[in-house]
Amino acid sequence: MQMLKDKIIKEGQVLSESVLKVDSFLNHQIDPPLMQAVGKEFAERFKEAGITKILSIESSGIAPAMMAGLVLEVPVIFARKRKSLTLVDHLYTASVYSFTKNETNDISVSKDFLKQEDTVLIIDDFLANGQAVLGLLDIIKQADANLAGVGIVIEKGFQKGGQLIREQGIRVESLANIASLKNGQVEFVEEARTE
Amino acid sequence: MQMLKDKIIKEGQVLSESVLKVDSFLNHQIDPPLMQAVGKEFAERFKEAGITKILSIESSGIAPAMMAGLVLEVPVIFARKRKSLTLVDHLYTASVYSFTKNETNDISVSKDFLKQEDTVLIIDDFLANGQAVLGLLDIIKQADANLAGVGIVIEKGFQKGGQLIREQGIRVESLANIASLKNGQVEFVEEARTE
Repeated sequence: MQMLKDKIIKEGQVLSESVLKVDSFLNHQIDPPLMQAVGKEFAERFKEAGITKILSIESSGIAPAMMAGLVLEVPVIFARKRKSLTLVDHLYTASVYSFTKNETNDISVSKDFLKQEDTVLIIDDFLANGQAVLGLLDIIKQADANLAGVGIVIEKGFQKGGQLIREQGIRVESLANIASLKNGQVEFVEEARTE
Repeated sequence: MQMLKDKIIKEGQVLSESVLKVDSFLNHQIDPPLMQAVGKEFAERFKEAGITKILSIESSGIAPAMMAGLVLEVPVIFARKRKSLTLVDHLYTASVYSFTKNETNDISVSKDFLKQEDTVLIIDDFLANGQAVLGLLDIIKQADANLAGVGIVIEKGFQKGGQLIREQGIRVESLANIASLKNGQVEFVEEARTE
């Protein structure tokens, strides 16, 4: 998605060979028109998938997920993160390890909002090691719901998450896929897809 | 805002005389068309205020704030919550006590995104004791930015937050203002405003 890539080149800060900071439009400050374009693009890519719910995770997944939900006309659920869950009654839960923060959080979704008859699109801001998405997949499995696929705003293609998920036969659509952050430069994976 | 009140009556769960659970459309599952209507209503009410930034707080403030930002065509910042901040370099920070959770979190906003020349609209999901809004006001003061006012999706008018903030001369616009949750019933404050 060219508009997103342009924004990454213009405003993204390469902090190391593995860390890209996009606090100015996605992770702290949000650019609403960009999020709207991102939502439309996800909706376009998954419009034939029969989606009934979008599942995301707090906090940075909420904006792109909601914009996709608005176009697809389906509710959006955001999984909650907690250091540890004491009350798990009526919740689907999974543990998610964050390599960035070196901590494990429990994530949870109420059983009220995810049902067996749902077809779910997962949307998240970043895909790096894939731990958050694996946790969300686990929750969808617990609910015995159908999975349409995974929509990611920015994939770090040089980390293993995308491969881990795609090799399970799951469709992953990344709107920007980064091949490398070496030498302080953002390089994108070449796309076969014409946009 | 009638659409919002109707939704509260239909789907809100009164858990006690002070707790209203709206997990089906605001705090866990999000209803995108309702959030769009909420965003438009905030934008309408504050359209003459010269707003340049919207400031909210993760996680449940993000959806309504982003929708207002889309209509007002301004960026949205969400303050981050942390148990305690170790690295406060280049951050505005404030402490926020949560009566619901009986814990104090530090909230923070990067100095990159809030400037003296900004005119800021605060948007949050709930106003009860007002602690989160007071923290956000503190941050705006630290940035020496202008305040346009506060937009709240659901105010619990029987708690002290609204009064605390309004008596500072600050404009607070609540889209639904709850007078009482007694006897398991939601009663709204009568509004002079015609909608």
